[in-house]
Amino acid sequence: MGEESGDSTPRRRHSRAGKLPGRQDWSSWPHYQAAATGFRGYWYPVTYSSQITTKPRQVTLLGEKIVLIRDNGTVFALKDRCPHRGVPLSEGNQQFPGTISCPYHGWTFDLATGELKAAITDGPASPICGKVTQPTYEVTERLGMVWVFVGDGEDAPPIDSQLPEELVGNAAVVGSRMQPRAGNWRFACENGYDEGHAKYLHRTALWRLFKAMPVWNETRIVRRGRWIYRVQEKQYWDADFPGLGKWSNQAWYKMKPPTEVGNIGNTTTHRKVNPVIAAQEFPGFASVSMPGVLRIVYPTFIHYEFYVPVDADRHLYVGVMASFGKGVKTWPFYAKYLGFVRWLFHGQFSGQDRWMVEVTDAPPERLYRPDDSLLKWRKLAEDVSEERAKRLRAEGLESVGRPTDN
Amino acid sequence: MGEESGDSTPRRRHSRAGKLPGRQDWSSWPHYQAAATGFRGYWYPVTYSSQITTKPRQVTLLGEKIVLIRDNGTVFALKDRCPHRGVPLSEGNQQFPGTISCPYHGWTFDLATGELKAAITDGPASPICGKVTQPTYEVTERLGMVWVFVGDGEDAPPIDSQLPEELVGNAAVVGSRMQPRAGNWRFACENGYDEGHAKYLHRTALWRLFKAMPVWNETRIVRRGRWIYRVQEKQYWDADFPGLGKWSNQAWYKMKPPTEVGNIGNTTTHRKVNPVIAAQEFPGFASVSMPGVLRIVYPTFIHYEFYVPVDADRHLYVGVMASFGKGVKTWPFYAKYLGFVRWLFHGQFSGQDRWMVEVTDAPPERLYRPDDSLLKWRKLAEDVSEERAKRLRAEGLESVGRPTDN
Amino acid sequence: MGEESGDSTPRRRHSRAGKLPGRQDWSSWPHYQAAATGFRGYWYPVTYSSQITTKPRQVTLLGEKIVLIRDNGTVFALKDRCPHRGVPLSEGNQQFPGTISCPYHGWTFDLATGELKAAITDGPASPICGKVTQPTYEVTERLGMVWVFVGDGEDAPPIDSQLPEELVGNAAVVGSRMQPRAGNWRFACENGYDEGHAKYLHRTALWRLFKAMPVWNETRIVRRGRWIYRVQEKQYWDADFPGLGKWSNQAWYKMKPPTEVGNIGNTTTHRKVNPVIAAQEFPGFASVSMPGVLRIVYPTFIHYEFYVPVDADRHLYVGVMASFGKGVKTWPFYAKYLGFVRWLFHGQFSGQDRWMVEVTDAPPERLYRPDDSLLKWRKLAEDVSEERAKRLRAEGLESVGRPTDN
Repeated sequence: MGEESGDSTPRRRHSRAGKLPGRQDWSSWPHYQAAATGFRGYWYPVTYSSQITTKPRQVTLLGEKIVLIRDNGTVFALKDRCPHRGVPLSEGNQQFPGTISCPYHGWTFDLATGELKAAITDGPASPICGKVTQPTYEVTERLGMVWVFVGDGEDAPPIDSQLPEELVGNAAVVGSRMQPRAGNWRFACENGYDEGHAKYLHRTALWRLFKAMPVWNETRIVRRGRWIYRVQEKQYWDADFPGLGKWSNQAWYKMKPPTEVGNIGNTTTHRKVNPVIAAQEFPGFASVSMPGVLRIVYPTFIHYEFYVPVDADRHLYVGVMASFGKGVKTWPFYAKYLGFVRWLFHGQFSGQDRWMVEVTDAPPERLYRPDDSLLKWRKLAEDVSEERAKRLRAEGLESVGRPTDN
Repeated sequence: MGEESGDSTPRRRHSRAGKLPGRQDWSSWPHYQAAATGFRGYWYPVTYSSQITTKPRQVTLLGEKIVLIRDNGTVFALKDRCPHRGVPLSEGNQQFPGTISCPYHGWTFDLATGELKAAITDGPASPICGKVTQPTYEVTERLGMVWVFVGDGEDAPPIDSQLPEELVGNAAVVGSRMQPRAGNWRFACENGYDEGHAKYLHRTALWRLFKAMPVWNETRIVRRGRWIYRVQEKQYWDADFPGLGKWSNQAWYKMKPPTEVGNIGNTTTHRKVNPVIAAQEFPGFASVSMPGVLRIVYPTFIHYEFYVPVDADRHLYVGVMASFGKGVKTWPFYAKYLGFVRWLFHGQFSGQDRWMVEVTDAPPERLYRPDDSLLKWRKLAEDVSEERAKRLRAEGLESVGRPTDN
Repeated sequence: MGEESGDSTPRRRHSRAGKLPGRQDWSSWPHYQAAATGFRGYWYPVTYSSQITTKPRQVTLLGEKIVLIRDNGTVFALKDRCPHRGVPLSEGNQQFPGTISCPYHGWTFDLATGELKAAITDGPASPICGKVTQPTYEVTERLGMVWVFVGDGEDAPPIDSQLPEELVGNAAVVGSRMQPRAGNWRFACENGYDEGHAKYLHRTALWRLFKAMPVWNETRIVRRGRWIYRVQEKQYWDADFPGLGKWSNQAWYKMKPPTEVGNIGNTTTHRKVNPVIAAQEFPGFASVSMPGVLRIVYPTFIHYEFYVPVDADRHLYVGVMASFGKGVKTWPFYAKYLGFVRWLFHGQFSGQDRWMVEVTDAPPERLYRPDDSLLKWRKLAEDVSEERAKRLRAEGLESVGRPTDN
């Protein structure tokens, strides 16, 4: 039953909804803008090693459907579309060692070379053999995961040259979590490296329950080699907003900043820092590199995030935690990781990021001061991509999805 | 198991399926044709007042996403997209009175003006403050519902100038029902005002179970002020169709027309007509006005339908029943409304309309004589829209979705 | 927990994913390419006869929505869209014998001619009567199913001229199965007539559990009248693939070819072949005719498949088994059919085909030697369609969806 509001219409000014404010597109970074389905020329983790057996399995990476299969211990990857009638090879199986056969007519491809070795239903002398080669992908295994290289015909670089340096050569125990997520991979990566949101969005995360976070920071971004680092110049633990009032992330039950040990960016006071970690914590605790790899240095471990493009609307979140050490020293990490870090950090904390990545809708976008971290990341991506484009042109190769295609 | 039909192929003539007959588009009414997502420049009811609390809520109106929130008793409406990265403000909450904050980075907007008052994660002196203004909408509450004005930058007219006149200033009790429905709002409005379908489609409705309806009428449409009225010249209670036979809506258990009291369009013989109702029943019991408001005058109450455009494919059905009177006199209406009118009229009767609005697929369309009511409604909409377009041009404003856009 | 793979990156050559190999489109057969929603000018089975009663029912055929209704024992078909406002007539019912009425305003069409006989809500003298004619389709019943002719205004040929010849005039008992399926009808038809896949895809079907199949055949295609036949020149029961090894469909529990009785294409040694079947088994056991009818001659029955186009993405699979004979002789067929043939053959065996038709994605396609059967089928379709196009032009008619439309 209704009740009349006797008020007259409020006198607020009505604004017309028209063109959205701010930057209308990402044309300032043409390579980045064109990379909706990811950057080519990199290794990407696509699944756990344990998931790939002799039963073929389809994954989608950078918009391409790929069949993965393990043969005699080694993982192989081919384009997952039989050239005959377009049927996925991943629906088939192995009829001969070292091959995969399409389920429809038994076209049988060599796993290593992609060569059509037999068309079973056309007999041993089928004239088509040797005339068809299925595209293959380079594959390797690292950190308990299968990695696939997607390029444009160039030689794949060694994966070690792309992995975070400290993961190459150092003994480490790692825990990981792979989760298919909605949203473009660039929103995920920008969210990961974004300086601003953690202090607001994650203020309610259980992971931060007993640890205060600053309200805002003064920050600058520094490039060192393949990585750009976020350097905290100054942290502000509370603030008084003109016309609004005070706002703070602190509470009596949260550890105060001066005595804070495990706080992000404040690891230098920690008692027993592992030497591998100590080497990484300068110049900043948060860094990012191509093709979308985030590294956060905590006092006792390093956390990585790989934002793997599935297609323009979906990505694979790969979170990895690494503790550097050997033998008995690593047991506490295992226990802690399995006991609650996995659920709390990868799950609940990261679930807030997942939520934002799903609902982000940009450009148009109106950036603000803390987005300098985003701008620097886009510039890194742009510069590195332009270098690669030059290399490809010098080799007479051409990239799929290059900027001028869009 | 099959059985042969020994018949030879029937000799019926086969007609080729090609271009559909009749009117191919609505270009005779360019404003109307362009108004797939509704007419701008009007107040629309969007939800019950009780639904809007301090927890923000998103509604879609004329294709625009709007966040509604109640602050200190007053409802406010803003465009539901943070200009920073496109996140819905309705996913956020209030950090300071009189504001709403985006959940991602804490951008905080003044509810009344849309001004960006703080970007929490950039500190109190953030240079972006004062440089961003979020579009707002004028809002008011009437009849237990929240109404939002969607325009093109012009001043909103007082809502009283748009509500049915008898609802302004008269004491009334109202019952209402809001239901999201599939189908374009124009099909819903045309269905509501359509002269022809009631007598056929609704012949089986329980609401009509004991009341006969004519087979067909002679009708003309008359404009008075903002409204066009359907005037019944003559009613035919049964008919003999050449080559087919007799057809009638009458039955022994239905009240016959001469003694009919509660029959549509036949209210003048009613004993105690409320003066408000009596004032409305001439020149016709069914009338319609912009931007899609139907009014049906019954002997003891008036029924209204508002067809609120959500987007091109969905609308919000808002049915309102009003009884004019005060105090004890209104109790029987409450009892009757809550007891069965709400279910029978709004529900079952109106469910038949809902069904037709969902399956209507026009243009193309081949209209017939009773569709004069539709043509007059389209003409009203066209004329009123052309007047508004002239006013906007005179003010230097331009309408979103004006005919030439399409 | 991860484990490092110490291997260096495999040295497999990476191939760039670019343009797909083989034939890029079907422009060599323009009529066939244009026939995504089927060929016009044919009778198609659309439902079981028992499904059509006095309650109207919608079917989609060649992308057209058609209402079917039985009146006084005869089935009628009209375009299922009232020309007034686009409402499906199948949502209405009968108000007068020999007619169907739209549920919205009671427009009433003659079932046989499509003529608008009454617009009930405009009274007996409605000026629109006689000015609107709804397109109708010719309908007949055969083999327990309703068949509809979709053409371009030409006279429908007698259905007997299109049915497999042996089904006209011979006593037969038939069992059938109709199943809506995903995928374009052409993939279904090409799969049905495809020479190659049966020996590989179906090697695991229970239907073949105790019967060996060859690995590959030498085959040629021969046209006789409306049909093209697959003639097996030679069958190879096992094969040794260079570099891979031996491969065979034989097993100790499968009947060996020399003593094989019920094997496909090997029926001449069968003891008591029915004379109707004997007449069909030369020159080959598998044949196909327009507009997509497959015939497989088994020793004791004939199996037919009709691939009925619903729209570009869906088809209706109609499997029919016919045993030729009368009276007591037919009982074993009934028992066998109902007992397990229906489940095993139509269901499990045909389910493998269904799977492939769903995942086929062509063109592009890279055909191989056994695809000569596909090429000959496409040529048949093309030649017959070109003849029809000439006939239509001579009559001054024009086909919907003719090649130049696409």
